[in-house]
Amino acid sequence: MALIVQKYGGTSVGSPELIANVAEKVLARRSQGDDVVVVVSAMSGETNRLLALARAITPTPPARELDVILATGEQVTIALLSMALQARGCPACSYTGAQVHILTDSTHNKARIMDIDAQRIRRDLEQGRVVVVAGFQGVDEHGNITTLGRGGSDTTAVALAAALAADECQIYTDVDGVYTTDPRVVPEARRLSLITYEEMLEMASLGAKVLQIRSVEFASKYDVPLRVLSTFEDGPGTLIVKEDEGMEQAQISGIAFNRDEAKLTVLGVPDQPGVAGHILGPIADADIEVDMIVQNVAEDATTDFTFTVHRNDFTRAMKILQDTAHKLGAREVNGDDRIVKISLVGVGMRSHAGIASKMFRALAEEKINIRMISTSEIKISVVVDEKYLELGVRALHEAFGLAQ
Amino acid sequence: MALIVQKYGGTSVGSPELIANVAEKVLARRSQGDDVVVVVSAMSGETNRLLALARAITPTPPARELDVILATGEQVTIALLSMALQARGCPACSYTGAQVHILTDSTHNKARIMDIDAQRIRRDLEQGRVVVVAGFQGVDEHGNITTLGRGGSDTTAVALAAALAADECQIYTDVDGVYTTDPRVVPEARRLSLITYEEMLEMASLGAKVLQIRSVEFASKYDVPLRVLSTFEDGPGTLIVKEDEGMEQAQISGIAFNRDEAKLTVLGVPDQPGVAGHILGPIADADIEVDMIVQNVAEDATTDFTFTVHRNDFTRAMKILQDTAHKLGAREVNGDDRIVKISLVGVGMRSHAGIASKMFRALAEEKINIRMISTSEIKISVVVDEKYLELGVRALHEAFGLAQ
Repeated sequence: MALIVQKYGGTSVGSPELIANVAEKVLARRSQGDDVVVVVSAMSGETNRLLALARAITPTPPARELDVILATGEQVTIALLSMALQARGCPACSYTGAQVHILTDSTHNKARIMDIDAQRIRRDLEQGRVVVVAGFQGVDEHGNITTLGRGGSDTTAVALAAALAADECQIYTDVDGVYTTDPRVVPEARRLSLITYEEMLEMASLGAKVLQIRSVEFASKYDVPLRVLSTFEDGPGTLIVKEDEGMEQAQISGIAFNRDEAKLTVLGVPDQPGVAGHILGPIADADIEVDMIVQNVAEDATTDFTFTVHRNDFTRAMKILQDTAHKLGAREVNGDDRIVKISLVGVGMRSHAGIASKMFRALAEEKINIRMISTSEIKISVVVDEKYLELGVRALHEAFGLAQ
Repeated sequence: MALIVQKYGGTSVGSPELIANVAEKVLARRSQGDDVVVVVSAMSGETNRLLALARAITPTPPARELDVILATGEQVTIALLSMALQARGCPACSYTGAQVHILTDSTHNKARIMDIDAQRIRRDLEQGRVVVVAGFQGVDEHGNITTLGRGGSDTTAVALAAALAADECQIYTDVDGVYTTDPRVVPEARRLSLITYEEMLEMASLGAKVLQIRSVEFASKYDVPLRVLSTFEDGPGTLIVKEDEGMEQAQISGIAFNRDEAKLTVLGVPDQPGVAGHILGPIADADIEVDMIVQNVAEDATTDFTFTVHRNDFTRAMKILQDTAHKLGAREVNGDDRIVKISLVGVGMRSHAGIASKMFRALAEEKINIRMISTSEIKISVVVDEKYLELGVRALHEAFGLAQ
């Protein structure tokens, strides 16, 4: 008998009919003799409806009160799912985040879970009940309602699985797993049956649509086996676990990419200690997130410095960088917001030399010019012109045999 | 500086615009230097929307889960009103029933308030905040969400006023006070500026549309001055207080009536101790509420026994009564579901003889036959044929000079 935490997102519980479908899936699992805790999101569209109501009152709703109204979305779903289970003869009980004491810090709208009191849930499970918990929400030490931010229900599910030492945390969504790359770009893309937490984190640009990144970090930290699978089709999905579970690891697990990048370069900066900080400090102060950072040393005691930001921040970042460059006595600033990032991800990369050169060769064969390179232990990222995105991803998918 | 508890019902908070209007009314009161606690209902239509969702899941939603979903209605309103106040520069904070620990028993869907922890509210008031509390809901000793039943927000407001020893509890609604009778029946009906709790309770059939009866009992028990007034028009409304506040009391305060009555009579029942219990026991067991009860002793050691029920329960009640009558050896059973009840209400009745005869004379002059009479200390009720309702009420309104 296993203990399973299942999480169903907004599109999986978007109508009374869909909630009935979820109840059937929960019952199917339970009929295998397992205990089930279910975490649900607000019905699709509901969070936006509540936001619109708040914004009709004031364009800038205070954070605490926004959490009070948003938390009602999941509260509606837990009641409905618990009703659907009971209507099918299955004992069930619903709880809000506050009721099972999902203790968070007081950062309204993006609170972090600090502790969960699993006692009440355990007692219900012992009494043969399915426990239905509202995702996305918690309560701070003063009893104020908090929310975890968009996608926070995944984090709730993982945190509950960790607190209950569950055997598996299953994230039900509208895709049937994690793919080697986006099937819309490469039709041969293959569903991965197994992937490590680290790889999943590096696959963020693909994975973010499937799984909230913070929930993967949480699962990794507490070693919770995490499975992504479809609400609407049967299938094993993708299991996300830690590396050392004796898995025969392929060199490369997948290819992630990001269309929303823009690149900024400052050329001929006098090469002194602290120059990187001088350049990026004002960018960070403007709340612009920086993705890749590359620095080359040039010959004449000056350096070239390149970084990427989200495309939406490009104009703002250019303005700031021009100011900074002027102050630092740099030669030139240039930028390009028509670039994309393509990343090879795989823990096998660590023990296999030659991945990088194979990657660069595959791109060169397609005459794709690499504008920037950055590497981590389990990832190699290149920046290329936007127009080469599809071609580059397909070439790499083929070169590394990911379709097999 | 006074402490005022204000309650706004669903039609008063039915849209973002109306919520803005409520915020203005709260601010106006606050600008007089008073502390304000506001209790709100769900936006009009919301409770029905939530009920429909629940019934789309199951025709008989379990009571506990129904409370979980229904409680979201008020939670949305408290957040919106608190936002509207803050957007106007007024410090405000919202609380659900559970957050201010409105402790109830565990009777889901119609729970009773047992205790309120006013400490948190008091602290907020001391810090200059308006406190916005969700009506209609509470929490039981196990942390389960409960609701007080339709109209329960009035009770929340009165209970809070009692717990805070507020100077006045103001119930804002869509009428501007309590009238001598229904103005749709008697256009000359007059708004009462003052009425006692007891009279208000006896005026139930009129008052129920204005004020939840349970809240009046609560106000009476804890001696909370209660004022009914309009959200949409300025005016003093009707103040409901206890009798001994030195008021010059008119003989009659108002005329209540009830269109939904049906009358059942069993004739020639052997007159033995306990016969009333034998007749009404099976009716009560079928969850049929009995309103008036009249028993006459006939000559031949038998008795005639008449009672009224809600018209919807008439057919069921007749069936039960026929069974009972047969067992008791009664002579005959008859019934009439085309009758209405008209009641004169007034604490002044106690000290003024002749009210009853004046009433009967006024009805006789209009050739209205009285089918049944029942009296209490401050009320005289008669049952007449349905067709005489308007005529009877107008005649009495005129005879007792209520328009002046």
